[in-house]
Amino acid sequence: MVCLQRKDRGPAHRRLRTRYQEDRRHLRKHVPLRSVQSVAKPSFPDASSEQVSSALRAAEKAFSVYRQLPGERRARFLEAIADGLERDAEKIIELANSETSLGLPRLQVELQRTAEQGRLFAELARTGAWLEPRSDEAEPERKPLPKPGLRSHNIPLGPVVVMGACNFPLAISVVGTDTMSALAVGCTVVVKAHHGHPATCEKLSTLIHEAAKETDMPDGAFSLLHGESHRVGRELVQNPSTKAVAFTGSLKGGKALATVAANRPEPIPFYAEMGSLNPLFVLPGALRERSEEIATGYVAAVTLSAGQMCTKPGMLVTIEGPSLERFLKQSVLVTRESSPVAMLNAGIRDNFEANVERFTKSAKLIAASEQAPNSSANEASCQLFVTDASDFLGDPNLQTEAFGPSSIIVRVKDEKALLKLANSLEGTLTASLHVGEGDCAIVDKLLPILESKAGRVLWNGFPPGVVPTHATHHGGPWPATTDSRHTSIGIFGYRRFVRPICRQGFPSP
Amino acid sequence: MVCLQRKDRGPAHRRLRTRYQEDRRHLRKHVPLRSVQSVAKPSFPDASSEQVSSALRAAEKAFSVYRQLPGERRARFLEAIADGLERDAEKIIELANSETSLGLPRLQVELQRTAEQGRLFAELARTGAWLEPRSDEAEPERKPLPKPGLRSHNIPLGPVVVMGACNFPLAISVVGTDTMSALAVGCTVVVKAHHGHPATCEKLSTLIHEAAKETDMPDGAFSLLHGESHRVGRELVQNPSTKAVAFTGSLKGGKALATVAANRPEPIPFYAEMGSLNPLFVLPGALRERSEEIATGYVAAVTLSAGQMCTKPGMLVTIEGPSLERFLKQSVLVTRESSPVAMLNAGIRDNFEANVERFTKSAKLIAASEQAPNSSANEASCQLFVTDASDFLGDPNLQTEAFGPSSIIVRVKDEKALLKLANSLEGTLTASLHVGEGDCAIVDKLLPILESKAGRVLWNGFPPGVVPTHATHHGGPWPATTDSRHTSIGIFGYRRFVRPICRQGFPSP
Repeated sequence: MVCLQRKDRGPAHRRLRTRYQEDRRHLRKHVPLRSVQSVAKPSFPDASSEQVSSALRAAEKAFSVYRQLPGERRARFLEAIADGLERDAEKIIELANSETSLGLPRLQVELQRTAEQGRLFAELARTGAWLEPRSDEAEPERKPLPKPGLRSHNIPLGPVVVMGACNFPLAISVVGTDTMSALAVGCTVVVKAHHGHPATCEKLSTLIHEAAKETDMPDGAFSLLHGESHRVGRELVQNPSTKAVAFTGSLKGGKALATVAANRPEPIPFYAEMGSLNPLFVLPGALRERSEEIATGYVAAVTLSAGQMCTKPGMLVTIEGPSLERFLKQSVLVTRESSPVAMLNAGIRDNFEANVERFTKSAKLIAASEQAPNSSANEASCQLFVTDASDFLGDPNLQTEAFGPSSIIVRVKDEKALLKLANSLEGTLTASLHVGEGDCAIVDKLLPILESKAGRVLWNGFPPGVVPTHATHHGGPWPATTDSRHTSIGIFGYRRFVRPICRQGFPSP
Repeated sequence: MVCLQRKDRGPAHRRLRTRYQEDRRHLRKHVPLRSVQSVAKPSFPDASSEQVSSALRAAEKAFSVYRQLPGERRARFLEAIADGLERDAEKIIELANSETSLGLPRLQVELQRTAEQGRLFAELARTGAWLEPRSDEAEPERKPLPKPGLRSHNIPLGPVVVMGACNFPLAISVVGTDTMSALAVGCTVVVKAHHGHPATCEKLSTLIHEAAKETDMPDGAFSLLHGESHRVGRELVQNPSTKAVAFTGSLKGGKALATVAANRPEPIPFYAEMGSLNPLFVLPGALRERSEEIATGYVAAVTLSAGQMCTKPGMLVTIEGPSLERFLKQSVLVTRESSPVAMLNAGIRDNFEANVERFTKSAKLIAASEQAPNSSANEASCQLFVTDASDFLGDPNLQTEAFGPSSIIVRVKDEKALLKLANSLEGTLTASLHVGEGDCAIVDKLLPILESKAGRVLWNGFPPGVVPTHATHHGGPWPATTDSRHTSIGIFGYRRFVRPICRQGFPSP
């Protein structure tokens, strides 16, 4: 049985840690933070303060025209962007892969999804469903006071600043939901390129500018700025023309910019999608019935895209019992067999290694990919840890997302301890339940807790793979996001960028 | 012609100012800030820190039960509150009048509206329309990845803190939209009583507790605390159990508490409805056709409830021209004829007098009620000022709401100056257009500007009298509110207190 020893975590753990420590020492000595290859790449200097102001002045000027265009015109603009994505797919994917190492198959799926998502938002612009009109008839004879006729609908907020994610260079970057939903409802957009894939951002920006020209959009409706320095992000948020910000990134970055947004003379909505633990709860019946299947699915979810998914399951909670050994055995087996995977860049790989190193204080490493990672290719191995509830709750490091292919299995004594642990969790994008026969009673108690912590709850599923549709929700309570009322993926993403206006007593339209 | 002289504002102005200055001197000498009568009233000590914690602990505990009650149960609770309001109407109105001087007729209308509003929210709880369910069917055969079934609906955020307004002791206080919409969707509520009408708050709280007992609601679902000190408000916002705050009051108070909410370890939504100028734009055609009618309606709107309405028109903009004299003449006439009115309390009356005193630096007083106000009854006279665009834009005092029966007429040279002035305004709850023949061209330019500044735009109407319905919107861009996406009056007020949860791959319900 793979068990947890608190004082000495055993020879396997020591061997594994030693190998990683050697790897890391080698890596620090021989691999610069930016790989040698990147020196030859074109450089993208940070936007100056004047460039930031100028982009937002243009966005504000364009807004007064762009917001008043017929929905059909904006729909054609978005469709031209989606068409451009597909037309230039090969070039875009190649570029994105060279900057992110995410791999061609994954990027092909992402590009297709991004184009489809763009067309969904084009349809939104065309139908005007985002206007959400509602009305009350006038009642001139009403007592004690006559009632005026009222008609409300949504209007766009104004220029929106978008700061995309490192891990989705297409779907959550320059042409992602943030940009497309804002453009659909008549907001103009200034994107800060992600410094992890600046050339991809440039290529996508060119594509949007071409689409804008082709469909005769006003100058300034869209623009891209580069800004690795925090100054650029801060100035974009502070600029008085900015009326909302959509950000995807770290908790630290999100918190810092949220404070900037809240402290403006005119505070503005700041939507950040940040870190998340995405716990899986494997209940006793499920563990009894499908321990191997769940273990295999779990490790696959942890390693998908090198664990660089907002919804990677960073922890799995399960109750001690006779089926647990089978589950752990299979998890260890699959993890050992998993190939090391290239992470987005050396900095992210180093961060990941530092984070999992911190885990070892209160958790035991039970498995890692057997094959050694290629450090110079920024590879990392999948790493699986085990701990118990009290060690987990006692160590804030374990409760912090490690962006990469690792996860922590938390063994709890009984149902009561499981519910206590669930209650102690912070906000998260997703939580997943694995349910089998006899688990109904726990589900009845656990589900309301998980729904109070998460934006999306999965039943017998694994979180990666959010679907950009009507009913999805990619959000969650703090610190998963800054605003649990909104989603950053799916059609309703547009609600972040509109507000209602009410017309009272107006003549019939 | 009543004209504007910049150096010397004329003998009428001097006479009027002299009278007010004498009044104020007398008042400061002889009338204590709290009237003598109030000493005899029962006192309501501020809640201790322990009482704040205890109320929110109870609200959090109750939440887990209350949110899971069938909608029908919550509907009956809200209906019992509405029934209680009507049953005890006489006593409540008498008490509210003794604390606010708003007058019996106005309070009768307000009570009826509050009861009706409560029943609207009961119906919302009963139908479950607030759940806003949406779903996507599973597509297990979809390529490249199968699509899981998704079902989303809204869930309540948790315990809500409500801080009501001084000027609506029934409709925007203990049993107002904030409380009733939060209770309808399953949030529990802690209200901070307004120190301007604490006994009314106590009476309403008792009524809610009785309704809760009658309908078997969990203890802690509702509670009332007193807190004239800022400490109580701050502690209520800071308490970790608080998940959202609804506040109606001053810009200063709203800003201070918004900062507290944003700086919590877990930031929470903070909805404040604050000050507002509510400009009226009287266009040339309207002025030509209906100058007397508009002047009469304008002064009535300024004096309604002693000008203590969130949507009192604090300014009126119109273009110089031959019809302006008639308009000013009628405005002066009606203002002179208006009776002085008792304000909510001595402090508010003093504030009002201080604010209008500041106006005199850059605006000319053209009319005031002829009848002298009774200072010891906290009465104030309606005061009407005139200025021009450059003086208005040059003096921040004129651009700040004076809570009470005053308004400033801003004369502009031409259409261009009118549009420039409109563009320079801050966010506001309402803006009103008075339109006549030949005004269409200006409306086309002005309406988009006003819609970018206001939450509600009125056509040939005057703003007071918001209707708590489906299509209304009582909100607006900063500094009118902290969150222009939401309304604090009308059915959609509940959207402040819910967020979506998505269930993925769940078995059919």
